Amino acid sequence: MTLSREPAEPAKATLLVEVKAPGNPLPTLGEDESYTLEIDGTHATLRAAQSVGALRGLETVLQLLQGDRDGWYLPAVTLSDRPRFPWRGLLIDVSRHWMPMEVLERNLDGMAAVKLNVLHLHLTDDQGFRVESRRFPRLHEQGSDGLYFTHEQLRELIAYAADRGIRVVPEFDMPGHVSSWLVGHPELASIPGPYTIERKWGIFDPTLDPTREQVYQFLDGFLGEMAAIFPDPWMHIGGDENTGNYWRVNPAIQSFMASNRLADSHALQTYFGDRVAKLLQKHGKKMMGWEEILHSTLPKGAVVQTWRGPKALAETARQGHTGILSWGYYLDHMLPAALHYTVDPLPADAKRMAEEANRWVPASWYHRFRFKPPEASAVVREQDAARVLGGEACMWAEYVDPETLDSRIWPRMAAVAERLWSPREVTDVKDMYRRMARISVQLEELGLMHERSGDLLLRRLAGSSEPGPLRVLARLVEPVKFYDRQVQFKEAMQGTPLTRLVDAARPESLEARAFWGSVDDLLADTPRFDRGADQLTRTLHQWREIHPELARTLERSPALHEARPLGGALLVLAETGLEALSYLRSGTAPRQGWREQALQRIDEASRPQGQVELAVIQPLRELVLAAALQPEAPTLPAAEWHARVKTEALAAIPKPPEKKKK
Amino acid sequence: MTLSREPAEPAKATLLVEVKAPGNPLPTLGEDESYTLEIDGTHATLRAAQSVGALRGLETVLQLLQGDRDGWYLPAVTLSDRPRFPWRGLLIDVSRHWMPMEVLERNLDGMAAVKLNVLHLHLTDDQGFRVESRRFPRLHEQGSDGLYFTHEQLRELIAYAADRGIRVVPEFDMPGHVSSWLVGHPELASIPGPYTIERKWGIFDPTLDPTREQVYQFLDGFLGEMAAIFPDPWMHIGGDENTGNYWRVNPAIQSFMASNRLADSHALQTYFGDRVAKLLQKHGKKMMGWEEILHSTLPKGAVVQTWRGPKALAETARQGHTGILSWGYYLDHMLPAALHYTVDPLPADAKRMAEEANRWVPASWYHRFRFKPPEASAVVREQDAARVLGGEACMWAEYVDPETLDSRIWPRMAAVAERLWSPREVTDVKDMYRRMARISVQLEELGLMHERSGDLLLRRLAGSSEPGPLRVLARLVEPVKFYDRQVQFKEAMQGTPLTRLVDAARPESLEARAFWGSVDDLLADTPRFDRGADQLTRTLHQWREIHPELARTLERSPALHEARPLGGALLVLAETGLEALSYLRSGTAPRQGWREQALQRIDEASRPQGQVELAVIQPLRELVLAAALQPEAPTLPAAEWHARVKTEALAAIPKPPEKKKK
Repeated sequence: MTLSREPAEPAKATLLVEVKAPGNPLPTLGEDESYTLEIDGTHATLRAAQSVGALRGLETVLQLLQGDRDGWYLPAVTLSDRPRFPWRGLLIDVSRHWMPMEVLERNLDGMAAVKLNVLHLHLTDDQGFRVESRRFPRLHEQGSDGLYFTHEQLRELIAYAADRGIRVVPEFDMPGHVSSWLVGHPELASIPGPYTIERKWGIFDPTLDPTREQVYQFLDGFLGEMAAIFPDPWMHIGGDENTGNYWRVNPAIQSFMASNRLADSHALQTYFGDRVAKLLQKHGKKMMGWEEILHSTLPKGAVVQTWRGPKALAETARQGHTGILSWGYYLDHMLPAALHYTVDPLPADAKRMAEEANRWVPASWYHRFRFKPPEASAVVREQDAARVLGGEACMWAEYVDPETLDSRIWPRMAAVAERLWSPREVTDVKDMYRRMARISVQLEELGLMHERSGDLLLRRLAGSSEPGPLRVLARLVEPVKFYDRQVQFKEAMQGTPLTRLVDAARPESLEARAFWGSVDDLLADTPRFDRGADQLTRTLHQWREIHPELARTLERSPALHEARPLGGALLVLAETGLEALSYLRSGTAPRQGWREQALQRIDEASRPQGQVELAVIQPLRELVLAAALQPEAPTLPAAEWHARVKTEALAAIPKPPEKKKK
Repeated sequence: MTLSREPAEPAKATLLVEVKAPGNPLPTLGEDESYTLEIDGTHATLRAAQSVGALRGLETVLQLLQGDRDGWYLPAVTLSDRPRFPWRGLLIDVSRHWMPMEVLERNLDGMAAVKLNVLHLHLTDDQGFRVESRRFPRLHEQGSDGLYFTHEQLRELIAYAADRGIRVVPEFDMPGHVSSWLVGHPELASIPGPYTIERKWGIFDPTLDPTREQVYQFLDGFLGEMAAIFPDPWMHIGGDENTGNYWRVNPAIQSFMASNRLADSHALQTYFGDRVAKLLQKHGKKMMGWEEILHSTLPKGAVVQTWRGPKALAETARQGHTGILSWGYYLDHMLPAALHYTVDPLPADAKRMAEEANRWVPASWYHRFRFKPPEASAVVREQDAARVLGGEACMWAEYVDPETLDSRIWPRMAAVAERLWSPREVTDVKDMYRRMARISVQLEELGLMHERSGDLLLRRLAGSSEPGPLRVLARLVEPVKFYDRQVQFKEAMQGTPLTRLVDAARPESLEARAFWGSVDDLLADTPRFDRGADQLTRTLHQWREIHPELARTLERSPALHEARPLGGALLVLAETGLEALSYLRSGTAPRQGWREQALQRIDEASRPQGQVELAVIQPLRELVLAAALQPEAPTLPAAEWHARVKTEALAAIPKPPEKKKK
């Protein structure tokens, strides 16, 4: 369609937008984002109290657009919509890997499409100081490898975000996470320098010295400069993961603590936090920080960002502070969208939420991690609920660069966005995935690279514009979960290219999900095992057929060396699956010992290679156990038998070796 | 590989770069771009006279990088390399469709990779004035829809290009192609305004009035302002496609012509050109223009850009002027890379070059266009050869936007770049395609979108992240050639979305090329018809098998409405091809009438739909004629029989209906 550039007369307009007031010049926490939308056979009318509501409504109009063989249309609807939480954010870490303007801008476009309203920029950390300081130019000159935002760029970015109803909250992490500050300003450090930009990943000791006035004078100047650039009332000062090690080894700091009756590093950090809060106040800003900042002297108006579990959020609210939830929304953990979607800042039932979330913990972590049912003290009390402002998903940047960032944020971010906008009762995971697939395609129109980046990497790895079987493999693997990528490849650092199979793999394989869906269909269809069988057979045959070419592709490139065992593993899975299917379909009991051999083959195929794991392991285990348990199928109700298969398949997951106690 | 950030000591370096002198601060026409490269078992040494040569050599090093199962390596080579032509350019039209900074920057990266050294920016035209003028701000304010480059952006772009050894030559097209100028400055026009930005495509009448001093005063100011921004010695003032219509209807202009003894519009344009050349000279610039500027008073040092045929280039050089070739390098014509690769600014044999180029004219144009063997006057004389500076490929922007631009430039541009850099004798088309496929993948690493953009459009059209059969179809079609897109869809204008199947299709289908290769293999393998048969059968079966799903996909989306007949057409081709194959493989003569029916079915399938055409029509005709001519195969030498099949397949292309004579 070619749309006219000229607005129509209101009486003739097919889409009429009515806004009562322009609203705030800049997006503001808690402003009215509501709108109503009425679409009938001839007109659409969007009404909002202020322009930001109209923006949100227009995104809904775009989402409603549908086509069939007769043409495009908007379905007739009458809806009244408003966000559940006023703080719906995405943190992007631009320190560990630099993200230039266009990357942030396209992600802001994506955020606007799913009605998010806060971009949290993690601007400084050990690995890079990403903002120009005109007062202290050595900060960005020596701490950034030349990769930082100028003042003009920041203003442009803030305006770009504001045009989309999105606030920008800057974070300057302190007193830890400051190696990059200290390269140019070692005089601020807790022990003498020199310091260099940190290239590795982890938690490091360099820390500001909270005992010297010079440090506060410096921060006064720096935060004042930043306060003039960032218009949002909140400024995030980090406050997380301070090891305290350098405080302990410096006698001057120890003696300061003694004379000021500061019992330990926590007390010293509180002292530091109080001083910084006063500086922020001086510059007209309120404090925001990670949950470590929560203490009795925290000033009112502060926002606490909780990240280690639900307890800190409940505690924050109980103490009368406002807080947001980031625990459960760490996109760098490479978890399925369903898990993030399940986590709710104010769950109807916290215990049930934990149980539900556990359903979505990847099988490879079954024995290693469970969400615990929270203690009573970890549940936000009803009277504190209004202090829970919302949440923020976190995109930490150890393993993302401008090329792969989008594929780690999108489309999973859309599921978190819905959790923070829509009513608590909207929890249908299957329907969420259906809608996520749709919006994923729409998000591409905004320039997001999440679909494209994987194919690009695969073409490069295969050295061919048609990666063929390598693409089939890549769609069936996922990066290892939580922090296992670091554990399994300790050499990784800032300069390590993110151009491997693990980078081409998506955090969540939707192909594996679809495969599992077919297995579910099949196993629910006792005793015929007919439903889904064709699809499963086709898929398993494909895995088997591509093997020779896949093996050749993996063989050819040194960059694919680490992934070579996956070629054989996929073949083993295909053959094992076809055997199980044949037992099930023919109604034959497997031969003696087959179950154990099959499970062992699957265990071997489940080993991560090159920090990816095949994401179809658990449905294969279910197929094997179904074949083994087939004789009992006629004796049990279908659902009961299927549940038993699933339970045994979980029990078949090998336990990791116990760690030796010291 | 993680490369070290620290330079090694020269004695230990694995790659040593030796540059004798830094060279010019800005890239300069004719500067020394040569380099030598020696790679042995342990070291690589790159030597250049100046840094731009080292840049060119480093691109070669990157191209040489190879991998096998044992790791990465550079092959041992000793080479001495230098460009054949000093002017190797790409024109990007940013007027008809706006291209923002990042689009140009990533294309500059691509240009550097293939050793191009001129970016020609077509900055103004009827459809948009794309450069900020501080002297005459109404130019960009009223002529650009807000889409223009600021002075700062232009300086950034020029610096970005210079870092890559690329000159930026700006074009301000005049006295025609100026609608966008006249919106804010109607007083410059040949007839009274008001004027609006032109939204349609074509050649239009708005023209500067060359008879008024006010116009020259204006141009003096404007060109002076631009001369201060663009450092290159040449400034392109267009000069093409002036209809002269508005000159003819203005009595004041006619009377000026009479009193100045200017016989016709050409004479008046020459007068205008002479005046503009003097202004350029005043501002320290030399003139460049399209071939229409060639006339006896053209100042020395001017560069003539020839675009309508080889004759103007020969004439330019004969008259003592320097020129470059753009005829044969129009990327918007959607022609195969082989055709552009065949066109040489200084061919060894012009007649042969025309014959060779005709081999690559698409079959759908077989009866409509042939390159003519040039007359003697159209051949550059040996003594004039040094005045042929090189060439420029032209990317006119009627049908490209920031999303699709790259896929129209790349990878075909690499073939033109090689023609302009490498020795005239390097003409192996098959090997060119082999290398083009390789470099296409490498170009993606630089951020170019040529591979990605088609898939993005297909996902959007299919409304699914796996477009499946639609992708198979899209890879087998090509946009219609030359200006047929406009002829077949006259409603197209600036605001028309470029998001259709024709935009997802590549200018040249490499899949169709591969298919034709298999047909060639098969038909060369008389009388067994064995070679390539498996591949062909697989491909034809695939076309047949995807039909039901393809038909459903085409049915579902209104945006695919226009492409619906292609679903059936592909099925017909598959069935016809399989029939032919079966006759050939079984050694059976086709039944009576089959040949005619089959050819008729193919003719029907060859009809463009939605401005795309199936690119496998001609190999299918060859299969049909091979089946029909099979009885004669044993009686003729294989090559002769194969040639006969090809000749008859060409003869089978239906002639377009004759136009009625008026």
